[in-house]
Amino acid sequence: MMDAVTRSLEPLAQDELTNINAYWRAANYLSVGQIYLLDNPLLKQPLTKDHVKPRLLGHWGTTPGQNFIYVHCNRVIKERDLNMIYISGPGHGGPALVANTWMEGSYTELYPNVPMNEVGMQKLFKQFSFPGGVGSHVTAETPGSIHEGGELGYALSHAFGAAFDNPDLMVCCVIGDGEAETGPLATAWHSNKFLNPATDGAVLPILHLNGYKIANPTVLARMSHDELDSLFVGYGYKPYFVEGSDPEEMHQKMAATMDAIADEIKAIQDDARNNGNMTRPMWPMIILRSPKGWTGPKEVDGKKTEDYWRSHQVPFSNVVNNTQHLELLESWMKSYRPEELFEDNGDLKPELKALAPEGARRMGANPHANGGKLLRDLSLPDYRDFAVAVERPGHTMAESTRVMGNFLAEVMRRNLDTANFRVMGPDETASNRLGALFDVTERTWMAETLPEDDHLAPNGRVMEILSEHTCQGWLEGYLLTGRHGFFSCYEAFIHIVDSMFNQHAKWLKVSKEIPWRRPIASLNYLLTSHVWRQDHNGFSHQDPGFIDHVVNKKADTIRVFLAPDANTLLHVTDKCLNSRDFINVIVAGKQPQPQWLSMDAAIKHCSAGIGIWDWASNDQDGEPDVVMACAGDVPTLETLAAVDLLRQHLPDLKVRVVNVVDLMTLQPKEEHPNGLSDREFDILFTPDKPVIFAYHGYPYLIHRLTYRRTNHKNLHVRGYKEEGTTTTPFDMAVLNDIDRFDLVADVIDRVPGLGSRAAYLKQFVRDKLIEHTEYIHKYGEDMPEIRDWKWPYNS
Amino acid sequence: MMDAVTRSLEPLAQDELTNINAYWRAANYLSVGQIYLLDNPLLKQPLTKDHVKPRLLGHWGTTPGQNFIYVHCNRVIKERDLNMIYISGPGHGGPALVANTWMEGSYTELYPNVPMNEVGMQKLFKQFSFPGGVGSHVTAETPGSIHEGGELGYALSHAFGAAFDNPDLMVCCVIGDGEAETGPLATAWHSNKFLNPATDGAVLPILHLNGYKIANPTVLARMSHDELDSLFVGYGYKPYFVEGSDPEEMHQKMAATMDAIADEIKAIQDDARNNGNMTRPMWPMIILRSPKGWTGPKEVDGKKTEDYWRSHQVPFSNVVNNTQHLELLESWMKSYRPEELFEDNGDLKPELKALAPEGARRMGANPHANGGKLLRDLSLPDYRDFAVAVERPGHTMAESTRVMGNFLAEVMRRNLDTANFRVMGPDETASNRLGALFDVTERTWMAETLPEDDHLAPNGRVMEILSEHTCQGWLEGYLLTGRHGFFSCYEAFIHIVDSMFNQHAKWLKVSKEIPWRRPIASLNYLLTSHVWRQDHNGFSHQDPGFIDHVVNKKADTIRVFLAPDANTLLHVTDKCLNSRDFINVIVAGKQPQPQWLSMDAAIKHCSAGIGIWDWASNDQDGEPDVVMACAGDVPTLETLAAVDLLRQHLPDLKVRVVNVVDLMTLQPKEEHPNGLSDREFDILFTPDKPVIFAYHGYPYLIHRLTYRRTNHKNLHVRGYKEEGTTTTPFDMAVLNDIDRFDLVADVIDRVPGLGSRAAYLKQFVRDKLIEHTEYIHKYGEDMPEIRDWKWPYNS
Repeated sequence: MMDAVTRSLEPLAQDELTNINAYWRAANYLSVGQIYLLDNPLLKQPLTKDHVKPRLLGHWGTTPGQNFIYVHCNRVIKERDLNMIYISGPGHGGPALVANTWMEGSYTELYPNVPMNEVGMQKLFKQFSFPGGVGSHVTAETPGSIHEGGELGYALSHAFGAAFDNPDLMVCCVIGDGEAETGPLATAWHSNKFLNPATDGAVLPILHLNGYKIANPTVLARMSHDELDSLFVGYGYKPYFVEGSDPEEMHQKMAATMDAIADEIKAIQDDARNNGNMTRPMWPMIILRSPKGWTGPKEVDGKKTEDYWRSHQVPFSNVVNNTQHLELLESWMKSYRPEELFEDNGDLKPELKALAPEGARRMGANPHANGGKLLRDLSLPDYRDFAVAVERPGHTMAESTRVMGNFLAEVMRRNLDTANFRVMGPDETASNRLGALFDVTERTWMAETLPEDDHLAPNGRVMEILSEHTCQGWLEGYLLTGRHGFFSCYEAFIHIVDSMFNQHAKWLKVSKEIPWRRPIASLNYLLTSHVWRQDHNGFSHQDPGFIDHVVNKKADTIRVFLAPDANTLLHVTDKCLNSRDFINVIVAGKQPQPQWLSMDAAIKHCSAGIGIWDWASNDQDGEPDVVMACAGDVPTLETLAAVDLLRQHLPDLKVRVVNVVDLMTLQPKEEHPNGLSDREFDILFTPDKPVIFAYHGYPYLIHRLTYRRTNHKNLHVRGYKEEGTTTTPFDMAVLNDIDRFDLVADVIDRVPGLGSRAAYLKQFVRDKLIEHTEYIHKYGEDMPEIRDWKWPYNS
Repeated sequence: MMDAVTRSLEPLAQDELTNINAYWRAANYLSVGQIYLLDNPLLKQPLTKDHVKPRLLGHWGTTPGQNFIYVHCNRVIKERDLNMIYISGPGHGGPALVANTWMEGSYTELYPNVPMNEVGMQKLFKQFSFPGGVGSHVTAETPGSIHEGGELGYALSHAFGAAFDNPDLMVCCVIGDGEAETGPLATAWHSNKFLNPATDGAVLPILHLNGYKIANPTVLARMSHDELDSLFVGYGYKPYFVEGSDPEEMHQKMAATMDAIADEIKAIQDDARNNGNMTRPMWPMIILRSPKGWTGPKEVDGKKTEDYWRSHQVPFSNVVNNTQHLELLESWMKSYRPEELFEDNGDLKPELKALAPEGARRMGANPHANGGKLLRDLSLPDYRDFAVAVERPGHTMAESTRVMGNFLAEVMRRNLDTANFRVMGPDETASNRLGALFDVTERTWMAETLPEDDHLAPNGRVMEILSEHTCQGWLEGYLLTGRHGFFSCYEAFIHIVDSMFNQHAKWLKVSKEIPWRRPIASLNYLLTSHVWRQDHNGFSHQDPGFIDHVVNKKADTIRVFLAPDANTLLHVTDKCLNSRDFINVIVAGKQPQPQWLSMDAAIKHCSAGIGIWDWASNDQDGEPDVVMACAGDVPTLETLAAVDLLRQHLPDLKVRVVNVVDLMTLQPKEEHPNGLSDREFDILFTPDKPVIFAYHGYPYLIHRLTYRRTNHKNLHVRGYKEEGTTTTPFDMAVLNDIDRFDLVADVIDRVPGLGSRAAYLKQFVRDKLIEHTEYIHKYGEDMPEIRDWKWPYNS
């Protein structure tokens, strides 16, 4: 491959060089125009302040570099008929992507109101960062994008996610040197240990050493050449440096490098695909060092601007009131010589148009960047075939997630041929009892192996890396390019990706409003090893707050399911795998637990999302005295055990048990599509009886969801209140007052007129709590009567 | 330095080697005992199942490696009188730290109920991961710890945070190879570009290649030696490899390496301190490759266990029912030959005791790991000296955070000598208008510089890296070792550290329950560039949900302040800098905005945390018809503008304005120490009048805080409802119905009997909203009447 570089240090003939540079100038011109101009797009009239936007918003600094990369991608796409998409890590350089997709025609195809002429160019300019127009970033509105780039850190994991199982795809991933300082990006480089050269596509990372962040040099730009080289060799790449500022020299260097790299990637893939060489290759990457705000004003008001942080956003703002700035803007824009680039009518000159790829090869029109277009339904088995036989509620024991794992394994098996389903998780697939997957596939692994290794293979479809960020980024990239997946995670540590969840939810919200964006598969989380069973790891592993975080996002984008047992979990999982454009959060335990519902009962229950468990209630002949509501597996268990105590000790008390699977049913119908009407809610919860609600997470959330309901004033919620340590499972419930004994006491405190038997029962449960604490401190495990408790009724 | 290594490849004399190995065996013995035994600690009786815990919880895999490191740290501490603390990245190896601190005596000093004898050893064993005992991780209960290690990723940033401004301190930081896969850890290596060899201490990273995670090899353990070396050279370190499994060889290698490194660190520091050499040094680090579960059972039930993932937690569990396992446990523990290690009474043999450092040099007794002991109050100027003169509400304009920046700059100046105050932020200090800091200090910078650089210096005290994780980790490490700090961040992106916030809040909660832990300075966040002024960056930059996340944590640990203007911000900032053991979240804007309160009024208002703004209300002579509540700067502005419209158009309407600075005042007194009593709440909000509440964040939070209040049913909250794009500032409010016009409409809809003038006003505000939208779509900026609006009343 070294030969290729040596051979063609100046691969561009003069006319090609001239045209490529002109194409780049045009993109730069269009970028500056978007940031500054309201009108007079071709500068046919002398520029006046009326032509300039009153508020100047945008990021110039990264833009010329991205324009430079884009035209060189175009060149290799066209010469080699490559199937390439472009991920803009510094997505705040939105003008670059808008300009380039307009120049190649893909923009106008999707937005015919922005034609390729002077009128269209004026609209293109005005709409940018303008009310009612388009955002300043590479938003979902931007053709060819799967990555907004506003929150930095995820470009590279998105790129790898897009490349998995897309053997013909090449993903150009531009990484800003600011972004390169983030943690998620810093570890995403290791994704090369998970990329299979035979069956996956290629990622071409381009680290753009632009030199500066908002007001500061970047760390990577201020390491020595040797350190940089060493760092990326250490990460397992072969870095190619393209450095400089002279446009003609840089075009030659970049073209030569892109040629060498395209050859090299092809050679790597051929070697794997034809010769079966499955050793991990040193994938090429580019380190592009170019001036921030390249080709922009060298100085503004006597201060260094090009190649400095002052170019980060708008290099100078006060154009309306400062004639010098107005002149500077005009001379800057004219420095690109627009008359050589555009026809009089505003269309791009034909010799430049000819540089862009055609049809779906244009990066703005590549269907992989509108993944819903390529999405194929999963082949799903009948989830009912995996049901746990439940003859009698609460007597069969099962690990819910293990049952789910059997189902997921069959899903995996049925979709091996189409290669469009992956399961992600930070090293917890087996721990989370999804090990059945390893009967069907292996863990993806391209790093070194040892003879004793089990379930590692280059073509494995379970992806484990101890980085929730990378798992989430890979999965997002995979889904956004039209495939399916599942992310299982310890509940507490899913907070690590709170902000990534935010960005994906925002992307989905905007995408749904864009007619040409096709629905994609939902992002499905299984949160397990949850708060109530982190008795062994202790306090740091106990946090059920991701649900609270999720429900702040748009109601039609998010759903939360709390599966009380295995059969409900099966139903919910099937539902989530079938859904589109949602983020589904499933919470379910992995420990052995009583099974409550037969498959038929589970289907009925889950279809409503919430319901009275008649078999557990004794209010069939009238109104209940108290409603015992529960959501989550441990709260359900404790609620039923409390109901048992109540029925034994207070047989006249009428208890209704309501179980919630779909948490969003609690919200008013106007707030969430799954919400109950007020009438439905009142029927379940009564208008006026005490409701004791045992909830999986932080109790406030239930109040937040139900504060408008008729009976809210009688709602008493128990949940996790940040109490916990390394202790026994039942003690976790006790520490947070959500155990059976405390729930019984809650009922007695809230149902009036229960009399002396209730007073006796209250003393009984108080004594039990003391007995419990003494027992566990002595023996270190829960009392047998707790561990062995079974629902004692037939139905 | 190479000489040092060559010179002393086997630096340990035989008796020293024997003793060090015995010390290590003792620590391993005590670790296994903690995981398995209830009783019979010295194995004086034959082991029976009654001696074994019924539930086995703990992590063996990392433990022997950490015991190995600890004894070698002890050796160099003692030989060189080093001031060293130990950070256990794999903090789940709690048994190692508990064992070692017990052996060195620091454990018993803090927990006299666990003496250094057989009784104490039995307690030490039983309490581990046992109800009522100690956690399985390196929790706040563990002497010498500032790092729990449950959530992986933050060990190295904590270590650097501890080392800043502690020139005599050496921080040994053990990083598991699982943790090394996380993003936050992967970027924390770059902290060496911020460590000043003259005025900071040293960090000694020890990457522990233990080989496996829960059920999977680690990525870093399966890179080639050359790649690993290259990676860390690229990160700017000088890696020393210590690899093997034979204990005697490994002790010699480790001792030689520790000697070489201690020399090297001293040479680096001397060169900087004596010769003024401020070029960034290549700091040494260790790559320690040792078997997972080293010295544990090689096989269990015929399956490879030592040096494999099966050693991760408890290598075999079924001891009570499986005689073979019981025998295996006994022979394993006896393989350490406890009779050679402990006296008959359980005390450590004197020749081993002699290996531990003494007094505060013991890592379990180093005061830096109980930072409150070293904490000195900040020298604070009078914040009132920085007040903005406000003669008349709403007529002075100021950027609140710029005013705060002047105060912070003076705080910085006054504490330069004690070097115990730093400001962190991801490249946003200037952007967030805190630039006055640069009149006093610079940005910390040890990487390359260029002539045009400004405000970069090795001894700068403003720390900027584009990694919220690193900023947070540095600050936590800095605070936990007894210093002060401040973290300013874009509001939306603080979610990046949601999970780090969780862990710090949990640490504080537990610390407060431990008598020997001294209070530390609070962790103070300034969240600015907030949701309402992310009109320019758009939707991805809009998220006020961190507050929701924060309020799930223990009430006595967290506080949230929403400053409506500069003088309130000054008061709140002063309060936060004076506080201890809290996490304080301050939200305030950086854009020019009307100033409402004089300093005196601000002090009065902030002291209560909530109050009626009489000057804005017209209900002085009786009950109001409506309460207009507001929290946050933009909601306050829109509320007052709405009040102005109401007073102009409906002069008979009695309006009360309530402003909330301390969000927690809304909660019942029983729920949060700052909460209002119900009576106080009723006085402010009335028991029965409509309340229109304009809130900075997601509106549900206000319901969640107030659902128990008398007048909750009449509370109507406006806030951010996940609508936004690149638009004008006022349009952000309009998109979310929190603008003045929508607030007026809300009042009209909710106050009964307003008559025809109100109907006219409602039509008027509807028309205004249409006019607004048309105007911004045409001109791209807000209408002058919006931009120029001023509170028209004198008081």
